[in-house]
Amino acid sequence: MLLHTKKILEGIQDGLISVEEGLNLLKKDSYEEMGFAKLDCSRKQRNGFGEVVFCQGKKDEHLIQIFQHLYESEKEVLGTRASQHQYEIVKKQLPDITYDSTSGILKITKEHPLIGNIAVCTAGTADISVAEEAAQTAEFFGSRVNRFYDVGVAGIHHLFSKIDAIREASCVIAIAGMEGALGSVIAGLVDVPVICVPTSVGYGANFNGLSALLTMINSCANGITVVNIDNGYGAGYVATQINRLAYRQQSDHTE
Amino acid sequence: MLLHTKKILEGIQDGLISVEEGLNLLKKDSYEEMGFAKLDCSRKQRNGFGEVVFCQGKKDEHLIQIFQHLYESEKEVLGTRASQHQYEIVKKQLPDITYDSTSGILKITKEHPLIGNIAVCTAGTADISVAEEAAQTAEFFGSRVNRFYDVGVAGIHHLFSKIDAIREASCVIAIAGMEGALGSVIAGLVDVPVICVPTSVGYGANFNGLSALLTMINSCANGITVVNIDNGYGAGYVATQINRLAYRQQSDHTE
Amino acid sequence: MLLHTKKILEGIQDGLISVEEGLNLLKKDSYEEMGFAKLDCSRKQRNGFGEVVFCQGKKDEHLIQIFQHLYESEKEVLGTRASQHQYEIVKKQLPDITYDSTSGILKITKEHPLIGNIAVCTAGTADISVAEEAAQTAEFFGSRVNRFYDVGVAGIHHLFSKIDAIREASCVIAIAGMEGALGSVIAGLVDVPVICVPTSVGYGANFNGLSALLTMINSCANGITVVNIDNGYGAGYVATQINRLAYRQQSDHTE
Amino acid sequence: MLLHTKKILEGIQDGLISVEEGLNLLKKDSYEEMGFAKLDCSRKQRNGFGEVVFCQGKKDEHLIQIFQHLYESEKEVLGTRASQHQYEIVKKQLPDITYDSTSGILKITKEHPLIGNIAVCTAGTADISVAEEAAQTAEFFGSRVNRFYDVGVAGIHHLFSKIDAIREASCVIAIAGMEGALGSVIAGLVDVPVICVPTSVGYGANFNGLSALLTMINSCANGITVVNIDNGYGAGYVATQINRLAYRQQSDHTE
Amino acid sequence: MLLHTKKILEGIQDGLISVEEGLNLLKKDSYEEMGFAKLDCSRKQRNGFGEVVFCQGKKDEHLIQIFQHLYESEKEVLGTRASQHQYEIVKKQLPDITYDSTSGILKITKEHPLIGNIAVCTAGTADISVAEEAAQTAEFFGSRVNRFYDVGVAGIHHLFSKIDAIREASCVIAIAGMEGALGSVIAGLVDVPVICVPTSVGYGANFNGLSALLTMINSCANGITVVNIDNGYGAGYVATQINRLAYRQQSDHTE
Amino acid sequence: MLLHTKKILEGIQDGLISVEEGLNLLKKDSYEEMGFAKLDCSRKQRNGFGEVVFCQGKKDEHLIQIFQHLYESEKEVLGTRASQHQYEIVKKQLPDITYDSTSGILKITKEHPLIGNIAVCTAGTADISVAEEAAQTAEFFGSRVNRFYDVGVAGIHHLFSKIDAIREASCVIAIAGMEGALGSVIAGLVDVPVICVPTSVGYGANFNGLSALLTMINSCANGITVVNIDNGYGAGYVATQINRLAYRQQSDHTE
Amino acid sequence: MLLHTKKILEGIQDGLISVEEGLNLLKKDSYEEMGFAKLDCSRKQRNGFGEVVFCQGKKDEHLIQIFQHLYESEKEVLGTRASQHQYEIVKKQLPDITYDSTSGILKITKEHPLIGNIAVCTAGTADISVAEEAAQTAEFFGSRVNRFYDVGVAGIHHLFSKIDAIREASCVIAIAGMEGALGSVIAGLVDVPVICVPTSVGYGANFNGLSALLTMINSCANGITVVNIDNGYGAGYVATQINRLAYRQQSDHTE
Amino acid sequence: MLLHTKKILEGIQDGLISVEEGLNLLKKDSYEEMGFAKLDCSRKQRNGFGEVVFCQGKKDEHLIQIFQHLYESEKEVLGTRASQHQYEIVKKQLPDITYDSTSGILKITKEHPLIGNIAVCTAGTADISVAEEAAQTAEFFGSRVNRFYDVGVAGIHHLFSKIDAIREASCVIAIAGMEGALGSVIAGLVDVPVICVPTSVGYGANFNGLSALLTMINSCANGITVVNIDNGYGAGYVATQINRLAYRQQSDHTE
Repeated sequence: MLLHTKKILEGIQDGLISVEEGLNLLKKDSYEEMGFAKLDCSRKQRNGFGEVVFCQGKKDEHLIQIFQHLYESEKEVLGTRASQHQYEIVKKQLPDITYDSTSGILKITKEHPLIGNIAVCTAGTADISVAEEAAQTAEFFGSRVNRFYDVGVAGIHHLFSKIDAIREASCVIAIAGMEGALGSVIAGLVDVPVICVPTSVGYGANFNGLSALLTMINSCANGITVVNIDNGYGAGYVATQINRLAYRQQSDHTE
Repeated sequence: MLLHTKKILEGIQDGLISVEEGLNLLKKDSYEEMGFAKLDCSRKQRNGFGEVVFCQGKKDEHLIQIFQHLYESEKEVLGTRASQHQYEIVKKQLPDITYDSTSGILKITKEHPLIGNIAVCTAGTADISVAEEAAQTAEFFGSRVNRFYDVGVAGIHHLFSKIDAIREASCVIAIAGMEGALGSVIAGLVDVPVICVPTSVGYGANFNGLSALLTMINSCANGITVVNIDNGYGAGYVATQINRLAYRQQSDHTE
Repeated sequence: MLLHTKKILEGIQDGLISVEEGLNLLKKDSYEEMGFAKLDCSRKQRNGFGEVVFCQGKKDEHLIQIFQHLYESEKEVLGTRASQHQYEIVKKQLPDITYDSTSGILKITKEHPLIGNIAVCTAGTADISVAEEAAQTAEFFGSRVNRFYDVGVAGIHHLFSKIDAIREASCVIAIAGMEGALGSVIAGLVDVPVICVPTSVGYGANFNGLSALLTMINSCANGITVVNIDNGYGAGYVATQINRLAYRQQSDHTE
Repeated sequence: MLLHTKKILEGIQDGLISVEEGLNLLKKDSYEEMGFAKLDCSRKQRNGFGEVVFCQGKKDEHLIQIFQHLYESEKEVLGTRASQHQYEIVKKQLPDITYDSTSGILKITKEHPLIGNIAVCTAGTADISVAEEAAQTAEFFGSRVNRFYDVGVAGIHHLFSKIDAIREASCVIAIAGMEGALGSVIAGLVDVPVICVPTSVGYGANFNGLSALLTMINSCANGITVVNIDNGYGAGYVATQINRLAYRQQSDHTE
Repeated sequence: MLLHTKKILEGIQDGLISVEEGLNLLKKDSYEEMGFAKLDCSRKQRNGFGEVVFCQGKKDEHLIQIFQHLYESEKEVLGTRASQHQYEIVKKQLPDITYDSTSGILKITKEHPLIGNIAVCTAGTADISVAEEAAQTAEFFGSRVNRFYDVGVAGIHHLFSKIDAIREASCVIAIAGMEGALGSVIAGLVDVPVICVPTSVGYGANFNGLSALLTMINSCANGITVVNIDNGYGAGYVATQINRLAYRQQSDHTE
Repeated sequence: MLLHTKKILEGIQDGLISVEEGLNLLKKDSYEEMGFAKLDCSRKQRNGFGEVVFCQGKKDEHLIQIFQHLYESEKEVLGTRASQHQYEIVKKQLPDITYDSTSGILKITKEHPLIGNIAVCTAGTADISVAEEAAQTAEFFGSRVNRFYDVGVAGIHHLFSKIDAIREASCVIAIAGMEGALGSVIAGLVDVPVICVPTSVGYGANFNGLSALLTMINSCANGITVVNIDNGYGAGYVATQINRLAYRQQSDHTE
Repeated sequence: MLLHTKKILEGIQDGLISVEEGLNLLKKDSYEEMGFAKLDCSRKQRNGFGEVVFCQGKKDEHLIQIFQHLYESEKEVLGTRASQHQYEIVKKQLPDITYDSTSGILKITKEHPLIGNIAVCTAGTADISVAEEAAQTAEFFGSRVNRFYDVGVAGIHHLFSKIDAIREASCVIAIAGMEGALGSVIAGLVDVPVICVPTSVGYGANFNGLSALLTMINSCANGITVVNIDNGYGAGYVATQINRLAYRQQSDHTE
Repeated sequence: MLLHTKKILEGIQDGLISVEEGLNLLKKDSYEEMGFAKLDCSRKQRNGFGEVVFCQGKKDEHLIQIFQHLYESEKEVLGTRASQHQYEIVKKQLPDITYDSTSGILKITKEHPLIGNIAVCTAGTADISVAEEAAQTAEFFGSRVNRFYDVGVAGIHHLFSKIDAIREASCVIAIAGMEGALGSVIAGLVDVPVICVPTSVGYGANFNGLSALLTMINSCANGITVVNIDNGYGAGYVATQINRLAYRQQSDHTE
């Protein structure tokens, strides 16, 4: 919103834009009203991140319309937390769609170069579904990703055998359930931001991920931030923002 | 209770003990009624652990009576969570009493040999008060203690520089606030029980130690158990039980 | 990790080990990379506890590979929280595997002598599934186990009728849901460590075991530590560590 | 309210009571408006329990007025959770008032016979302040009380040495902080209602009494009910209700 | 336990009881070991309350054995929280068993006189299943019960139309979910104990009954105690204890 | 209750009403006893809001009886949280009933004029089911409703494009899950009451709506009040009360 | 914001407003930048509610500046949660300021007519400070207020004696701590919105007002909404919004 | 740790480093043992972030030693959460130290160029102390900072008047208590990472910042991560990491 306020006002002053149209531009700022939802189809043009579909709980007919709409607009589309059933109904309309049952990612993706380096680490094997959501999100948005799975702190030699490779990333995503200490240890060993994703993996007093969330929020290590429980998508998004800042053309930020 | 039931019954059968006296023995089982409290003065004889005084919140006159009573009975006495004020009022009665303001330990102790090896580790410097409660409790009960402070996982090389020495213990006490991950990392590196003590150190979402408690209870590492927040005394007690089991005479358990 | 750092460095100095190999040894420290997981196959040799499989939530193909791998390496294997379905698919590959539907234990075990004495106590009959996970874990690791079920404090004569036998153990596991007071009472009656396992048994304000967890963590009794809700495995593991310390050869710890 | 509805209506029908007065009687039902509060001065006549003053947080001038008002009406008055300061300001107006600093009870009491038998038990010495609030409340309302302090379950022989005397009560009040298991054990040993009072005594994960409250609410023992944390007054009130039911004249309930 | 300690000791002294037998009597105190459980078959003789079966979660074969055992011993048996399936399997062994699907009560009951008067009140219709568990438990134990359903405080004239009948009870059970205020209002209108049962009825921020539990525990009204969420059985049990105290023969408590 | 107390008393005084009948009128105040429930059939006459049926969890036979009873009395009926199954069984008795599977609304409605203007806003598409419960409830009670869906604050231009229309309402309902910030932003932009409905939409640390509830309760914006999680009905009811106050005849409140 | 977008754009088109000025108007929308804060001085003109100062925690110099600034602009000013100290320092600058120590209200107020009728009810006397914050806020904004204190549900005849007067309000504010049931009972007796304010009054399991908040949010009664714990100001604000809607000139909303 | 493992091993192989020294290098990795703490004095050289002192709770003598030690090593030093008292005692040793009472920052800083652009935004004025901790931390580490205070969403035109300036940052820190919605709105308006800091500002159901933390963790907006309640330091640290990545020399990351 208000992205181009000044230009719109100048257009009105110059008579190039009518008051009605100016009002529309100020108000509407480019989304598409679908009745049940509003799609932000210009977002990719604006900031390089197309709109992503959170599939879970969406009605079948809505999901199909949204996927079609975004695909037509962008020739690529990414959905998260999709079920096998949702894959099958969307596939009827978009036969090129692919589905990864581990992460629940449903997507059609164009070929595009990958830049930078994001390290995606998990404490255990049960965290891989969240990790793949993070990794594939980052890849969809154009980041190169390296995966380091099952490097939890209870067997810390697993982590140390990989630490040199992890250190090469512009940003690390640390994914862990149960006691969630992975992020603290990694942040003590690298110099870049560590985005922590608590997972609901575990039982008993893990309280569906609350335990790991609290561990991560309370970390003594420098350089840690946290996203919601199981929110691989959110971590992949922020990691891409950071990765882009680190690898964009220097001309972008000469002062 | 019921420790010697059979012997008491045999004494009755043999006429050596009257019914009244047998009833007394079965019921009373050796504690001393002080009106406001019941002191278990035979505990040291029975299991080698004298009764310890939790000073916090005790009234002055009660505290003095309890310390005098235990000192007369045992010639040594240990109090935890004592204030400077409590130290001063007890000192008037028992001039030999010593006080450590870091841990709040108030004690008179006899010379006795120390056995075994307990490692007391803290994540940060703010955890030292709890650590000293644990360490001095274990020493009072006859265990040799080694201290490893400020070895938290956010700077894991601190821990690694001490790990060989920690490995020599029969039992490790891992004390940490904030994210509380210290125990998990240590338990992955040693083969003996790790007793975790969450501390209330921290701020914000540490919720006065709940965060560290949950981290520890949810640890993926093998060999971990947990005591209450800030309960250094409890950890020192259990560690001594384990240390004694490990270092008692072999003749004690030939099968 | 770093177990034999000095020996490796000496090997390099002596020209027996190349820098590359030394680097490998320092980093890898003996785990097997399976892509989706890292198996610690040398653990049994190192500390006498083989790697145990947490079956719940594992994918079928992963579970089969892990069981086969561990069985080939050790000729025995223990899995916890396995379902009937998991039993059936593993059985196709490893026909000797046995399954206990009460505890969810899936195992092949070699004959080996049992040492020492661990007492496994439950408050009610509904806690038996957790108790069997604890007991069978301890037995798999070589401990002798005695079971005392349905001895909860609401009918305290049940407990007293067994207390003499419980007192013979080197370590007690106290398992209880609902109000979880069993551990406090036992710890007041024995002189060895009591490992408490809160269970999710109950309803209403038990909050899936949180109530019992808090009861146990807050126990006034000396000698108590706590593991996660329903974590029979963890209790069986620590109890075995303590039992081994109590019953190892005296020559192991002459000072 | 509506206690005598029928009688009032009959009075109107008979012309003995005007409509206005009947309306008043139906609405007002005997309380005294003090502006800042409404005092129920006829309660003692109605059900044998005079209005009791919760002193904590009351303004000085309000407290004095309320005490004077109730004393004038009843010639006795009971206040709970009073501070030393409140005692002093009330004493200026009512020189006969007495204050117990342990329980915070502030009272003038008439001589009256005590009936029945209520057992007030505490787990530790720190629970005594709550216990005295319960006991003195019950005594003020005419119940005979026996006190059993420091009989917590971690040293269960303390409890057993008193159990025969506890069994003679018509109702037991079990007061405990920390793990709060006292009520469960007692309820398994007696046949009368056990009213549990969790206390805020403890530290760490006791969460100011929540832990003890949950323990008590989840008790497996039959015959247990629970009141608010530290609510000795409430327990003393209900215990008196039960004690009166048990000891009232038989003629009261012939069927 | 210890019920007859003195008599046993006298028997030993007199040579009527051997030491072995005395030891047995002191320890065993009359329960029946079933392997998976311990049944207290003499309880009915001892205190007039037979052992009741909590059916939920019990294995089929265990449930059948327990019902048979108790029925043979007492000629009546009560089970709570039974499923339709459990009813069917038990019915094959005990054809006289009856099942109430609203409350989940499974029972065979002998004819016996009902005494006294317990009022069971619910706030809404959804609380009736818990109310029936309470009411039928009290009836099984010999209490007369009057039911007052759907008298919640949001339509307080419902309650007032019944208040005179409620006032005749020796004890009131107030059952409510959601905001749980029923107990407070009733306790302000009656002079006998009000046992509150919070229920899990509701949605959203009711947190499965926690909201109602907190409301009841915090009630300002005099005479209120609380049991666990949905614990109709527990309320029925205590209400019966109180009802018996109120209606027992006067000769029982002459002083 | 007490609605017409004075008139009843005057009737008695005048001999027009007998005492018995007066007593009845005072107590009963017009509800219909159905055994399992009490229906308030005169409510619509009294305050313009007929009784609404909360269908969830009701037994089939009860639901049918209640719908029939209310329909006969009012010729219209509204049920919330109905399932497809409940629709089908009620439809057999009341063929005119209609069902909206999005909101779970089951109703027969008479034609009546709609007054005023209520704005129903949602943050996302997943909140629409709650929004429809609110909107259709308000419409059933006679309010005109405008819907503004998917206007959450993460894309604030969606909201701004609609803000002029929202400003025309007499009352706004703001419905949001996850972070729940919609209400705060709207309340800063309008001058009328904003009723916030937190929804259980989300995952992880949303804790089934608790997160949104806390956000809304803590809003810094003026003019916000909150109802229970997912309680569209409650919001629609209050909004109608406010809308009626704003649009009632001026003669209603001349002073 | 955007209040007059169209008019601004037309001004630009007509050449009456420059682009720069239009941009300013769109962005700034009339607040005053004070460095440490932004004051919305035109709010009173815009919607009839002047900006109110939340005094608690404000620095002395900031508080003085804000009071002066608002007073100069409006000739009246209202501050909430002020301390005695804050009163004294502000009084030096604004000698006409008055302070109410019960509510913490600090204000200078112009004479203005009061309209309508808001009923402010409390359960107990300890809730009066919150009630006065609500009442005086509503009065400052021009509403007539009637106070009904100490009408809690545990003595429900207190409430009934006032119910006819409460029914005359356009809106009720129900303020209660502890069990918080007051709102539910009132909402069942009146036809207008009931705004509930939970208070932190109480102890133990009231959890500083959480208990009362949950009670109110879960109320079964129709017409209830809730604000934050102790938020008398918020309730007074919304009540005034409703009161104004009910009493504004009919011409305001002819359709 | 292990930063230069390979180089150390090569040194050993080449005879340049003895085994003992190599062992030391591998283990010690450059920290300074102070007995009560371990200072990482080479950190600034290693990664450009010197060690920062968390002053709160440190003992006077420890604090002085640490400040002296770090100042001698770096000629600059930063302390957070310092009290006035701590400032005074440190000033005696380091007269050049400066103290900011708003943020609690205690520092001596060298002149160094500032790079990039971090926007620090607060919802209210009470959040400024946390904001200054964040801003001054970032400045100490070499980042240029722009401050935008009191731009909370309840008056969203405040935010919009500043949004163009905020958009120029490489990273935004959004600081808010109460409902905490600021981050969601900003993240919808910018394309760079938004680091959210919940604050403990507020009262009632804010639960000391938990409410704001949950709001932020659950944000629907893309690009949000969260740090601990009141953790301005942590946010300033991560923001600097991101700012450095965005503004480092291009030559650093040519691929």
